[in-house]
Amino acid sequence: MLVCVSMGSTGENWFRSLPTEAQHSQFLHDVADLLLKEAVFDDPAQLKTLFNFTPMDTPVTHTELIQIIRDTIVFSVKTGHPYFINQLFSSVDPYGLAGQWVTDALNPSVYTYEVAPVFTLMEAAVLEEMRRLVGFTCGDGMFCPGGSFANGTAMNIARFNMFPNVKREGVACAGKLVLFSSEDAHYSIHKMAALLGLGEDNVCLVHTDSAGRMDPLHLQTQIQRKTSSGAIPFMVIATAGTTVLGAFDPLPAIADICKQHKLWLHVDAAWGGGLLLSRSHRHKLIGLDRADSVAWNPHKLLAAPQQCSVLLVRHADILKACHSRNAAYLFQKDKFYDTAYDTGDKYLQCGRRADVFKFWLMWRSKASRGTLGFEKHVDAIMDCASYITTALKLRPAFRLVLEPEFVNVCFWYIPPSLQGLQKEPDFNQRLHKVAPQLKELMIRKGSMMITYQPLRNQPNFFRFVLQNSGATHQDMDYFLDELERLGTHL
Amino acid sequence: MLVCVSMGSTGENWFRSLPTEAQHSQFLHDVADLLLKEAVFDDPAQLKTLFNFTPMDTPVTHTELIQIIRDTIVFSVKTGHPYFINQLFSSVDPYGLAGQWVTDALNPSVYTYEVAPVFTLMEAAVLEEMRRLVGFTCGDGMFCPGGSFANGTAMNIARFNMFPNVKREGVACAGKLVLFSSEDAHYSIHKMAALLGLGEDNVCLVHTDSAGRMDPLHLQTQIQRKTSSGAIPFMVIATAGTTVLGAFDPLPAIADICKQHKLWLHVDAAWGGGLLLSRSHRHKLIGLDRADSVAWNPHKLLAAPQQCSVLLVRHADILKACHSRNAAYLFQKDKFYDTAYDTGDKYLQCGRRADVFKFWLMWRSKASRGTLGFEKHVDAIMDCASYITTALKLRPAFRLVLEPEFVNVCFWYIPPSLQGLQKEPDFNQRLHKVAPQLKELMIRKGSMMITYQPLRNQPNFFRFVLQNSGATHQDMDYFLDELERLGTHL
Repeated sequence: MLVCVSMGSTGENWFRSLPTEAQHSQFLHDVADLLLKEAVFDDPAQLKTLFNFTPMDTPVTHTELIQIIRDTIVFSVKTGHPYFINQLFSSVDPYGLAGQWVTDALNPSVYTYEVAPVFTLMEAAVLEEMRRLVGFTCGDGMFCPGGSFANGTAMNIARFNMFPNVKREGVACAGKLVLFSSEDAHYSIHKMAALLGLGEDNVCLVHTDSAGRMDPLHLQTQIQRKTSSGAIPFMVIATAGTTVLGAFDPLPAIADICKQHKLWLHVDAAWGGGLLLSRSHRHKLIGLDRADSVAWNPHKLLAAPQQCSVLLVRHADILKACHSRNAAYLFQKDKFYDTAYDTGDKYLQCGRRADVFKFWLMWRSKASRGTLGFEKHVDAIMDCASYITTALKLRPAFRLVLEPEFVNVCFWYIPPSLQGLQKEPDFNQRLHKVAPQLKELMIRKGSMMITYQPLRNQPNFFRFVLQNSGATHQDMDYFLDELERLGTHL
Repeated sequence: MLVCVSMGSTGENWFRSLPTEAQHSQFLHDVADLLLKEAVFDDPAQLKTLFNFTPMDTPVTHTELIQIIRDTIVFSVKTGHPYFINQLFSSVDPYGLAGQWVTDALNPSVYTYEVAPVFTLMEAAVLEEMRRLVGFTCGDGMFCPGGSFANGTAMNIARFNMFPNVKREGVACAGKLVLFSSEDAHYSIHKMAALLGLGEDNVCLVHTDSAGRMDPLHLQTQIQRKTSSGAIPFMVIATAGTTVLGAFDPLPAIADICKQHKLWLHVDAAWGGGLLLSRSHRHKLIGLDRADSVAWNPHKLLAAPQQCSVLLVRHADILKACHSRNAAYLFQKDKFYDTAYDTGDKYLQCGRRADVFKFWLMWRSKASRGTLGFEKHVDAIMDCASYITTALKLRPAFRLVLEPEFVNVCFWYIPPSLQGLQKEPDFNQRLHKVAPQLKELMIRKGSMMITYQPLRNQPNFFRFVLQNSGATHQDMDYFLDELERLGTHL
């Protein structure tokens, strides 16, 4: 029987509207079998002609549905493959996947204890443990639909902290509010500033040093400049692990400045937060405990399935104070249990998926490897990043953009036709075109995916971002070999 | 082998960091088996003592992990059970569940075509079909992390539509903006008004009639009153299927008023939108095609797994204009394919789950029942709502709050001790306490879950919200019988 229940004396199949139980049980088993088989990556260019996307035009049988699912798998990018280095997520942990499957079957919405008893308590336990790792001795936290909304929520509570009337009266009551982040901070800060009615232009950018870290002296200058012009600074957003260069802003110096000017310090550790699990590498986050709020995405470095994104705050009651509406039809106060467990009112979302269980189950399973499963995972990734950095320095076809501080290894591939021409005036212009061409070659071949981008005046470079601890030193050599193979004739 | 890939010539297992393939394959098979077995509902009160929530304190074996997963299932509410009538979501469709499982295994993030080729095209097809059902001949759309954010996004684009400078300069440049919704609209409108810097107080409430529908005359009055006071009306949010009473605001009259005052009309059809699939019932949404934007959650009435929430807009370019940041590291313009398929830049989220496939697969599968699977589903639910309405009128222990227009059947249970005492001065006060007591009894017994709430001056009443088309007339009788059984001694 399929995800069935008996509740009290009324146990009955809940798919009674559907043909037969056995048929659906067989269908789901077939899907599971399919997922356990191999699939191949294919050229996406023909996809619209190969795949019928219109959802409802023709009747289909179970056999045809299985074929459709097979096609979906075949034509989709295998983001769990160790040669997928395209974004800040990768790999699929089997415990994480099992956790997702169970969550899907239970289909909970985490707003009240009565509807999600296990998951509300599990969220509280995971958030508490994450706060402990950050160094908060008290506080609160919430799961968010991605790091962008975690940053946006932090901006909202920072604003509320300084001007609680904004909740009721709107931002007009507060004057010209400005916030500060580095020029390498995530683009969500601008998107959220627009959404929150603050305006993109009121995100004041702070210079970075040559390693991509926020310059505290320039932050100090910018705050003074804005204050003199009549604007009201209310927060600084520092980054622990920038998207492109993987830089860690100097948190102690920034925290000092925030303290001096009484500004809310939010740290976007969506990418770098996972280092907290490693005793060897967590020093990069020194000062994080002085933040007022921290965004941290376990679906990035810790390779939890998407999405698993968290906002942690050092202040116990502010999420509730800032977001609560006390909707009478959901958060009834005359319930028979302690409604402090009904966490939904402190959220901006109403209905909300349980993103906790997959991560909790991974964490629990990694305990079997000595509590330190995540540490081994993080250390293995850092080791591979270090290995590939050394390896590419030994090859004349590669040049580092900068010495990596994290797992972002940024480099140029210089094809034979450009080698030795570094001093030519059009070298950068020609180099700029290499990465897109090489990217096309690797996607058309289907051998790997590595992302590229320009940054400020730098021409397009590859950004190698590792998250899959299944990758080995041999894989690192493979990447460099394959880039050289693909790029020979560029 | 587990969710494996071969990409070009480099097919390899991507769980190489983990003990052995066979072990994990067995583990996932065990989890699937567990989900296919029965589970029982248990009293949640002891949960903290029965379940060890701390994620990392003790080593666990695979066998113990399976036991933990079993406990998670056992102690969780079976939201797919036909006797779960507690929220605006319910039941689990096997095709929807299969779609989730496949999505989980592929773990995509839908921002660029290169990373999610199938899912970006599938989203476009589903959004187009949903726009067609709404009656938009052109436009755009997006998947949202829930209806609250769909409403909030609509507010953001409505504001941008009237004052595009708000994106860069902030809301201060626009004056005192106000919007209008009925007093029965969803509480997310206030939450989002606060988030967007508009302020809760600038959500101007419009009276409802005795059936819970927005009063267009009062809307007209409120707009004039606000305009006279110097405020700037910019949008009206109507509701198609209110949360508590299931009322449909009169869209044609509201659209006329919006046209007259040049206001953006957003319709929150998160709950009622599913009626569009039924030829018998879609007339309740007449006028929806005149909206500028529509929120519609297939995870509600159409019973897609959570979350599946959509915002549709009648204007083709506004989502991109309002949200775009052109992040150079993600939306590279020098890619080799048509980057119009990189939809991520029009979103507020960056990384984003693929919520489309489960819904698409349900839709595709229901084609096998004559394109009309969703129609049958909707009609069956409406029929059961009508049946239980008639049935409870015949029982003296029940009283309708109002004649239902939708699947929200709102009623009081009047226990024997209160019957005949309707004229007593403390009747309402005593009746108010009945629903919470009855709710406790049903949860402790584990026989069913039905939500209750007060509304304005009305004492607590039950809100029976059906979404599971597997429920039968016999089930409707069961609900009423069980309420009478549980309530006998109240």
